Amino acid sequence: MKIYKTAVLPRDFEANGVACGLKRSHKLDLALFYSLRPAKAACQFTTNKILAAPILLDREHLKYSRSFRAIIVNSGNANCFTAEAGLKDARQTVTALSAALKVKTASILVSSTGIIGRRLPVQKIKQATPGLVAGLSRQGINKAGQAIMTTDKFAKAVSAEFEARGAVVRICGVAKGAGMIAPNMATMLAFILTDANISGDALKGALKSAVGNSFNCITVDGCMSTNDSLILLANSAAENDLITQKGKDFHAFRRALNYVCLELAKMIVRDAEGATKFIQIKVRNARDFYEARKIALCIANSNLFKTAIYGRNPNFGRIVAACGASGVDIKERDLKIKASPLDKREIFVEVAVNRGKSCATVYTSDLTPEYIKINAEYN
Amino acid sequence: MKIYKTAVLPRDFEANGVACGLKRSHKLDLALFYSLRPAKAACQFTTNKILAAPILLDREHLKYSRSFRAIIVNSGNANCFTAEAGLKDARQTVTALSAALKVKTASILVSSTGIIGRRLPVQKIKQATPGLVAGLSRQGINKAGQAIMTTDKFAKAVSAEFEARGAVVRICGVAKGAGMIAPNMATMLAFILTDANISGDALKGALKSAVGNSFNCITVDGCMSTNDSLILLANSAAENDLITQKGKDFHAFRRALNYVCLELAKMIVRDAEGATKFIQIKVRNARDFYEARKIALCIANSNLFKTAIYGRNPNFGRIVAACGASGVDIKERDLKIKASPLDKREIFVEVAVNRGKSCATVYTSDLTPEYIKINAEYN
Repeated sequence: MKIYKTAVLPRDFEANGVACGLKRSHKLDLALFYSLRPAKAACQFTTNKILAAPILLDREHLKYSRSFRAIIVNSGNANCFTAEAGLKDARQTVTALSAALKVKTASILVSSTGIIGRRLPVQKIKQATPGLVAGLSRQGINKAGQAIMTTDKFAKAVSAEFEARGAVVRICGVAKGAGMIAPNMATMLAFILTDANISGDALKGALKSAVGNSFNCITVDGCMSTNDSLILLANSAAENDLITQKGKDFHAFRRALNYVCLELAKMIVRDAEGATKFIQIKVRNARDFYEARKIALCIANSNLFKTAIYGRNPNFGRIVAACGASGVDIKERDLKIKASPLDKREIFVEVAVNRGKSCATVYTSDLTPEYIKINAEYN
Repeated sequence: MKIYKTAVLPRDFEANGVACGLKRSHKLDLALFYSLRPAKAACQFTTNKILAAPILLDREHLKYSRSFRAIIVNSGNANCFTAEAGLKDARQTVTALSAALKVKTASILVSSTGIIGRRLPVQKIKQATPGLVAGLSRQGINKAGQAIMTTDKFAKAVSAEFEARGAVVRICGVAKGAGMIAPNMATMLAFILTDANISGDALKGALKSAVGNSFNCITVDGCMSTNDSLILLANSAAENDLITQKGKDFHAFRRALNYVCLELAKMIVRDAEGATKFIQIKVRNARDFYEARKIALCIANSNLFKTAIYGRNPNFGRIVAACGASGVDIKERDLKIKASPLDKREIFVEVAVNRGKSCATVYTSDLTPEYIKINAEYN
């Protein structure tokens, strides 16, 4: 597997990012990811019961279409808690792009990120759409990666390549974070593009498993967003032999996709608002992966644990209390806790629970006065 | 119902508090609540899977005994995650008190609060026990209330009286907080004493219901402690006609107990570490009380909501996201949110969800840089 620490587009993809005026800062705020040929899609959305309008529209398109050509994303406004008007705005965004690209509306997916409860200024998006399309290029992926950012301090991108039967396949991912940290002004979004020739079932299976080990293993403040979306497009342009749910190529695809998802997820945690620490919590000897992850997330979401790490305070009692609060039937005598020195930026915590053979690793940040400052003042 | 904003002991109870040297500050750290006659007990303990040694011992005594005489409480050490040695230390505490009071060991209940994972200096407790017993008095309740404090800035006490058939019945409660806020250095403890003549079933039923509406409706940081305990003793000294689970007297008892529990619970939130706001969140029009409380607690535990209130930031999107994250199937169009002005110290948030007729109120505080400072530095 070959790794690029940047966004390198797979074959027959183009992208672009422009500033259409949604952000007061006049920074890039409208991104387009475009496939020159029909692509299959696999998506994972937030499990929040209140869903942003773009997710409702994507679900509709995913139900009626099997073939996708583009993803349009705006930052600066979440288009959430905007009722019927919000759904109409999302439709208008898609209709404008459909006309400019000359593709069907149902072949377009849409994402929004930003403040909740304010009407999307859709006129600005419509006006910017022709220029957004005209500027599409292979290098445009960097602008697109920037245009999806909100409070992110750096753009998050990674690419991986592997050899499949008949061709080299590439997977390229970009993401924006701050999402789990401040869901009302920002959300976790990730867009992953691949030229793999892969069956729809294999694509969905691989994505679900990759997300379970990456984006579902990170937490900053335990706050679940209304807009979290991961959209994966596969356009077959590598012209490799079809990857199905069995065999060596599927294994290689999964490995590369897991890598891309985990790297993007870790970057989101590294860029957490106000964070001074990057914390890995590994729970070992659990009955299964889900139990291990549940315990690890309970520790990672404990404000007391997070403030202790910020204060370089070796307070194991807080880890003990969080383990017991997870609901997993842990015995005191079975609990073993280890932690690396707390004066470093990277912290490793290992907890063994003596219940089985499974483990899970969760990534989180510390809770700092700066986090409170950022989120108290944002308006 | 007559209310006292202080601790006024019911008939045939005495109490005391001394400094036995567990706290470096030399403040009071050992409390005794004593009933001059056998009392019935009802208890509620933390649901954390890791239980402190005193809770394990109390469970044993509650299993084998129906008659109780005393509660001994130390602050400064939680006697938790201390394995077999911790249980032995709790037993020694009880044995020493049993000798001094000349009552059975199984008639004694014990609580501890303070740091997790350090051995209890039981020798200090044993040495102080004769003096603790010798100093028992009716006025001693104030010292006892102080001796259970850890990071509390004020002692928490309230009493209520009502007329039952044949007599005036009094209920007196003291509590210590900071518990839900910093469970490793402190925990929520409450001791409630009444001279009511009441059946065991009525006592337990009334307590369970009172706790569901008070102590289970408060949260500061969502961290569940290993030591949380509420112990209620009823010694029949009022000599009223026996209160059973039916009738006017049971109703009056419940009303007074609810009042005492809710007042103590609110005082704990008012004294939350670093708090600048006291926040009441009422969820209306839910299917049942539990659903309403679940949504309210999800809002109350959202770090983003809490920092917004600290920053006087009218960011309703954060309430929307928290409601949707509660898991309750709320429809966007049904959600109505109101809040009182954010520049006041007391904040009222009301959320209607249009699913039914039930409501619940939860009490919480804001999340502030001071909370982080206190918990980052404590060691």
